[in-house]
Amino acid sequence: EILSAIAAKLSDGPLKGKRILVTSGPTHEPIDPVRYIANRSSGAQGAAVARALRDLGAEVVFITGPAAVRPPEGVQVVPVESAREMAAAVQAALPADAGVFAAAVADWRVASASDRKLKKSKDGLPVLEFAENPDILKTVSQMSEGRPGLVVGFAAETNDVVENATAKRKRKGCDWIVANNVSPATGIMGGSENAVILISDGGAEEWPRMGKDEVARKLAERIAAALAG
Amino acid sequence: EILSAIAAKLSDGPLKGKRILVTSGPTHEPIDPVRYIANRSSGAQGAAVARALRDLGAEVVFITGPAAVRPPEGVQVVPVESAREMAAAVQAALPADAGVFAAAVADWRVASASDRKLKKSKDGLPVLEFAENPDILKTVSQMSEGRPGLVVGFAAETNDVVENATAKRKRKGCDWIVANNVSPATGIMGGSENAVILISDGGAEEWPRMGKDEVARKLAERIAAALAG
Repeated sequence: EILSAIAAKLSDGPLKGKRILVTSGPTHEPIDPVRYIANRSSGAQGAAVARALRDLGAEVVFITGPAAVRPPEGVQVVPVESAREMAAAVQAALPADAGVFAAAVADWRVASASDRKLKKSKDGLPVLEFAENPDILKTVSQMSEGRPGLVVGFAAETNDVVENATAKRKRKGCDWIVANNVSPATGIMGGSENAVILISDGGAEEWPRMGKDEVARKLAERIAAALAG
Repeated sequence: EILSAIAAKLSDGPLKGKRILVTSGPTHEPIDPVRYIANRSSGAQGAAVARALRDLGAEVVFITGPAAVRPPEGVQVVPVESAREMAAAVQAALPADAGVFAAAVADWRVASASDRKLKKSKDGLPVLEFAENPDILKTVSQMSEGRPGLVVGFAAETNDVVENATAKRKRKGCDWIVANNVSPATGIMGGSENAVILISDGGAEEWPRMGKDEVARKLAERIAAALAG
């Protein structure tokens, strides 16, 4: 790992001189000092993408929530916890030639996170009010100035994958969506394999089920081709 | 670790022949297939207690939520995720000579966890309804038949530690409460040290701040003395 990081730095890969942001992992949204809302993203796919981009010579800024996997060597790691922290870190890391938004960002946070541990009330139950989190993918996709030349989103769906991901691409304004099916039955969320469908303006391209590292390499090659073209 | 586990099995510790349940770690309460509510318990204190009890010769059943730390060697590990799974595992593991309930069990769960990923609704926000989880400590403490001879609870408080923990001991009906202050400022939740106050019918006994392993050894010795007495 350290050797490949050094080799990548010294080599003349197709992404040499390109600065690419990668977001990865889950976000944690605090409820109170001890409780939080999380999601089952392990960060494995995002870390693999960052590694593959690095191996092609890119300068990678890796903005990661509290993930189960370690970040790759040879990338600039920016650790964050909540969606709002991630959004701020993305803004701070721009401009970039491309952005790959692989993190599983919480759509909403607890509106009034408490600074004391919540006590059970008389009826024993809390009432949580939610607020919408910043939409990082949409914000970056629709920047009027300084938008990365290529913006890649991810979509984790449990049903109607192509339809939902195609609609998401349009709604967000990103260039590509890497869509996958995270139904518990597939074993993809938290597992080592992925079966993705790449949604672009050319339509939906289904990739065979393969290791997350292979998905990452294939995606990095596509990104290199797009940035060269 | 493996050697101490073997040594403990062969030795004639003061807890030889005693069966002790230990719960540990956080619980995860599902919201939908990808999201869940968690808490910041690392499981470090519970694992240390199980290890210390094992080292004194006890037969330990270690019922653990999804913890950051590995379970000790030489104990019977029962992995669970939610509070309801933990409650069922505790019932299945009884009878026992003592129970140490160190897990940070969620007080409530999402009443109608969805089997599909929740979509943002028109106004973008979900409405979550909660239901009370089973109270494992109270249930075991108040068993009319087959109650363990010694029931030890934990209380993680952020304020008024002695008052809250003393009230908790009374409300639950357990014998001891190991209380600690988990305010973020203390660095205890997720850290390697602990500063505890042992609440019993003799009152509140403050222990100096020490490593979680030391807290565990001191607690295990107290348990051995209580079960021998």
